[in-house]
Amino acid sequence: MSGAALGKLIGVGTGPGDPDLLTVKAVKAIRNADVLAWFAKEGKRGNGRGIVEGLVRDTTIELPLYYPVTTEIHRAKPEYVDQVTAFYEQSAADIAEHLLAGRNVAVLSEGDPLFYGSYMHLHVRLANRFPTEVIPGVTAMSGCWSQAQLPIVQGDDVLSVLPGTMEEHQLVRRLRDTEAAVIMKVGRNLPKIRRALAEAGRINDAFYVERGTMANTSMTPLASKSDDEAPYFSIVLVPGWKTKP
Amino acid sequence: MSGAALGKLIGVGTGPGDPDLLTVKAVKAIRNADVLAWFAKEGKRGNGRGIVEGLVRDTTIELPLYYPVTTEIHRAKPEYVDQVTAFYEQSAADIAEHLLAGRNVAVLSEGDPLFYGSYMHLHVRLANRFPTEVIPGVTAMSGCWSQAQLPIVQGDDVLSVLPGTMEEHQLVRRLRDTEAAVIMKVGRNLPKIRRALAEAGRINDAFYVERGTMANTSMTPLASKSDDEAPYFSIVLVPGWKTKP
Repeated sequence: MSGAALGKLIGVGTGPGDPDLLTVKAVKAIRNADVLAWFAKEGKRGNGRGIVEGLVRDTTIELPLYYPVTTEIHRAKPEYVDQVTAFYEQSAADIAEHLLAGRNVAVLSEGDPLFYGSYMHLHVRLANRFPTEVIPGVTAMSGCWSQAQLPIVQGDDVLSVLPGTMEEHQLVRRLRDTEAAVIMKVGRNLPKIRRALAEAGRINDAFYVERGTMANTSMTPLASKSDDEAPYFSIVLVPGWKTKP
Repeated sequence: MSGAALGKLIGVGTGPGDPDLLTVKAVKAIRNADVLAWFAKEGKRGNGRGIVEGLVRDTTIELPLYYPVTTEIHRAKPEYVDQVTAFYEQSAADIAEHLLAGRNVAVLSEGDPLFYGSYMHLHVRLANRFPTEVIPGVTAMSGCWSQAQLPIVQGDDVLSVLPGTMEEHQLVRRLRDTEAAVIMKVGRNLPKIRRALAEAGRINDAFYVERGTMANTSMTPLASKSDDEAPYFSIVLVPGWKTKP
């Protein structure tokens, strides 16, 4: 290793999907990146990479990071944890090589990097050794409630962000104990989420959004959604707004 | 009224403070606005207006909306509710006049318009009568945890967004019942928040951020903050991140 300055690690939030919802800072970071890293399923481009299409210079080195597994193995299994840990270790090592050579590395993260983003697995492995910056992004949930034009929280409302993977009785309990809720990771959990919302008396407030702010988005009150098919990254919103001054 | 097309109401999220954290879409909306409306204390410019300095055309009509009261009267008092209601009604009427005349009106909202933003009080009064768009923004909390480089939630973590105005025993209960928390509206509630975090066993995880992403920002682990002075819009973060694959 030469005495050259270290490159900078930059976690870049790409926002919810609409390329115009990138921040000015994210656009600059992507345009100036020596190396652009992005997560994807093997052989795919990844949603984050799709959002920044048209911003990437020809001379930028692209570093795809392909997940070894996604939903084929349950995330609680040791086999899953081992494979995913090895993947993050290897990804961090690959990025470190570029940083040691003085190249800035922008890592794309859909939504906001530190809000359920894969970027944070690299961050905790690299931020103690290299100059690091995190550029926040518009979250998927903000994109969804803005597109649906649903005021989500006001005044002294509590907002609970809940994973749809949670057990049904826990979902019911938490939905009863909050003014507003956002339920993430809907996918195959939709039938359970629907039952929990009904049990908690919130089903008629609930709104379903799929691929928020993207070209192929769709949305509907949950009660009007006629089937239980949903992509993993769809969201259910339960607005807290009730009274207004 | 002529047969001219109605103007469009646009709620524009200005992000947490750094002007580079405006989205590309927000920049376009502000540059193209016929009328730019923004909330502020009487005689002040307002933080939202400060963030977009340099983007506003000379020919844009500026429409300041001055709060009649801020913290002088407690928000639960009828006197407060009456004054604030009248203020939102009048503001909506002023904006409606421009919209009826075919002028597009961009309303600035710090952070994200539908996430604790004053914009929503105008939205619910106007969106049923005029074409409306909501442009999401990076929230103050995203700005804060990105600046502090604190991964806030991962995997199946629950995030609770709690107003610091909440009663102490409720804060304790909710802090015990969540992986991650963001406490908003800190200000004069800081001593209570500090006690609640200690009681819930979370004080050593808690991080304090003041004016996140702005030029005059400051931040520190809450346990190291030596006084209990805090501006209203400061934030306390309790990250949920514990284990990592």
